[in-house]
Amino acid sequence: MKRPNLSLYLVTDDRYFQDRDLIGTIEQALQGGVTALQYRFKKKPARQMYEELLVLRELTKRYSVDLVVNDRVDLAMAVGADGVHVGQEDLPPDVVRRLVGDSMYIGYSVNSVDKLRDIEHLPIDYIGFGSVYETTTKENYKLVGIEGLRQATKLTDKPIVAIGGITHYRVQEVLSAGAKGIAVVSAILGFEDVKRATEAMVEAMKGYYRKLMHS
Amino acid sequence: MKRPNLSLYLVTDDRYFQDRDLIGTIEQALQGGVTALQYRFKKKPARQMYEELLVLRELTKRYSVDLVVNDRVDLAMAVGADGVHVGQEDLPPDVVRRLVGDSMYIGYSVNSVDKLRDIEHLPIDYIGFGSVYETTTKENYKLVGIEGLRQATKLTDKPIVAIGGITHYRVQEVLSAGAKGIAVVSAILGFEDVKRATEAMVEAMKGYYRKLMHS
Repeated sequence: MKRPNLSLYLVTDDRYFQDRDLIGTIEQALQGGVTALQYRFKKKPARQMYEELLVLRELTKRYSVDLVVNDRVDLAMAVGADGVHVGQEDLPPDVVRRLVGDSMYIGYSVNSVDKLRDIEHLPIDYIGFGSVYETTTKENYKLVGIEGLRQATKLTDKPIVAIGGITHYRVQEVLSAGAKGIAVVSAILGFEDVKRATEAMVEAMKGYYRKLMHS
Repeated sequence: MKRPNLSLYLVTDDRYFQDRDLIGTIEQALQGGVTALQYRFKKKPARQMYEELLVLRELTKRYSVDLVVNDRVDLAMAVGADGVHVGQEDLPPDVVRRLVGDSMYIGYSVNSVDKLRDIEHLPIDYIGFGSVYETTTKENYKLVGIEGLRQATKLTDKPIVAIGGITHYRVQEVLSAGAKGIAVVSAILGFEDVKRATEAMVEAMKGYYRKLMHS
């Protein structure tokens, strides 16, 4: 099993690819410096997702970037993804582990500090935790806030990837709350120049770690 | 791998379960005599499908009825289905076979005689072929007609399950065209009394085989 590298974790979304080339746009983000890509689409037929994932599997390998598939464990297995990500409405993590064995890591979405207490026994390798800030990407999301994030990183030993409304000027706050990685949709895909938006995130993260080393 | 038993093959559909209990309705069809159930829903979260499938797995076993899962190979594997069914927009059959090994049979939808010529090499165990008649269950379907079905059963050695607009009074025509099984949605689920609608189909099929034996 590959060790997850989720420092800057791009998550896709149907709405940002309605008039935009998927592969070309993703490649811009890879050039800009994302370390992981989560393929998450809800409105495409499986055959199309499989074909796109085959291309993205090659592309992410070329950039040494992790490929994670959301929800569809079968697609993750079919293309040899590095990881699979499931939420509360997807297959339970223990069932996913039974299907994938040790071939890939498993991520799990948690959206409250309370729920975090129930998951220590689950066979998961990281936690996607949020929404840290207000977001327009998801409807009916739950806000955990930066304080919730801080509590969460103290409550569990599993790496926490923060998600929800994170932009480059919030990176410092999120990382200092203890997040091991930052997952974004809009902060990268919401921009015309995806490469540059990615670079802005990378710069903000580097800035934080630089400061940390010199403090 | 279980040998498929698709004589009377019930396929589910979101629209018929909007105000109706899934498990209770399916049990009526099992009591009425379906030999296989294809779980096909397009609008439910995976977790809900998984939980429903766990119940249906027990139920179908109790009635010695095959359980087949549409599209989601991961769900089929997770609940130990007897088969998985994929269409032209789902994962390709050879990829499915790689995932499931010999643990289950694979069905594949074909909707024209021409396409039938390309599939002899595919690792599939039966073909769902249609639409034989006009249907309201699927939008943008292709009509193969009873003549298309007759040609199809001559063109391939794989068992053909006929689908699309088949009712009890068309059973004889469909079976004499060479179909090994009949798949229905509306002919069973379109009725208030699902058990009785199923029995009407079973009676029509028995009637055909009785006549055949005495001719």
